[in-house]
Amino acid sequence: MKFCSTCGATVVLRIPEGDSIPRHVCIACHTIHYRNPKIVVGCLPVWEDKILLCRRAIEPRYGLWTLPAGFMENGETTAQGAMRETLEEANALVELKGLYTLINLPHISQVYMMFRGKLLDLDFSPGIESLEVALFREEDIPWNELAFTTIRDTLKHFFLDRKNGSFQFHEGDIISSSCD
Amino acid sequence: MKFCSTCGATVVLRIPEGDSIPRHVCIACHTIHYRNPKIVVGCLPVWEDKILLCRRAIEPRYGLWTLPAGFMENGETTAQGAMRETLEEANALVELKGLYTLINLPHISQVYMMFRGKLLDLDFSPGIESLEVALFREEDIPWNELAFTTIRDTLKHFFLDRKNGSFQFHEGDIISSSCD
Ligand SMILES: [Zn+2]
Ligand SMILES: [Zn+2]
Repeated sequence: MKFCSTCGATVVLRIPEGDSIPRHVCIACHTIHYRNPKIVVGCLPVWEDKILLCRRAIEPRYGLWTLPAGFMENGETTAQGAMRETLEEANALVELKGLYTLINLPHISQVYMMFRGKLLDLDFSPGIESLEVALFREEDIPWNELAFTTIRDTLKHFFLDRKNGSFQFHEGDIISSSCD
Repeated sequence: MKFCSTCGATVVLRIPEGDSIPRHVCIACHTIHYRNPKIVVGCLPVWEDKILLCRRAIEPRYGLWTLPAGFMENGETTAQGAMRETLEEANALVELKGLYTLINLPHISQVYMMFRGKLLDLDFSPGIESLEVALFREEDIPWNELAFTTIRDTLKHFFLDRKNGSFQFHEGDIISSSCD
């Protein structure tokens, strides 16, 4: 950020009074421009013993497999965002079963929130951001071609919980910057 | 937003190609400026049968009682943010017990995430954003002087779960714009 989005003047990095963190502050209108973490919402769509995955048609991680997920929009709830992303990326309708994983990625200031979802029918197809959409059994998951560590962790939790017969909410942090 | 924070030129509201929502787009450098929901992280600090509340020294809701909470910062995890806010507003140290409530406020594009916390000692005091910090038994909670619906809902869940002998994670939405 170099310019004030309110008045167009130059901004400087400065710790505002009563604050402890440098912020972009406008030298003309004195607006303080805060930056905050972004939420990524998504879904783990389940059909019988299979999971729906999308192969990415966009960077980053073009060509790799992911669960439908994307940035939460203003004006929606986390659940609405997860259903919207599932519809946009896979043209798939799901009934959500509650928040399943919450994963912090502090090095990129993102918080992933993945819901479990029941796929309502088999009428899915690639959205504009997907090359391909398909259902996978546990033994067929392309573990070495997954796009993000958050997706791998969510799938690992799912298959372990399913084996144990009980799904519970999982919180986690991914601290390394090497994989996401 | 009126000006591009990257180059200082004028921005216009326009639906970018492949998108479905109007965004602020720069007429000169073509940067798309996204806006996303903000996360508020906070804590429900418990000491024996009492809860720590802070009386707000800032607007909005000056003079009303709240649990320590505030905007999550870039570079931190949700748990780190909750502990930081508890330290800033109440000079209180807590051991977190996991995420307890997640409440969507889509009309103001915020997501509240409140953790249960065990207060580690009684060495607390008002931070710069608090007039007063105190411990309350359930029967003494100032229900009519609470600052936010999210705080009331979190406290209600806590006392009910405590009565039932088991704490579970709660998700909720507050749709009305009248109380928050
Ligand atoms: Zn300005
Ligand atoms: Zn620009």
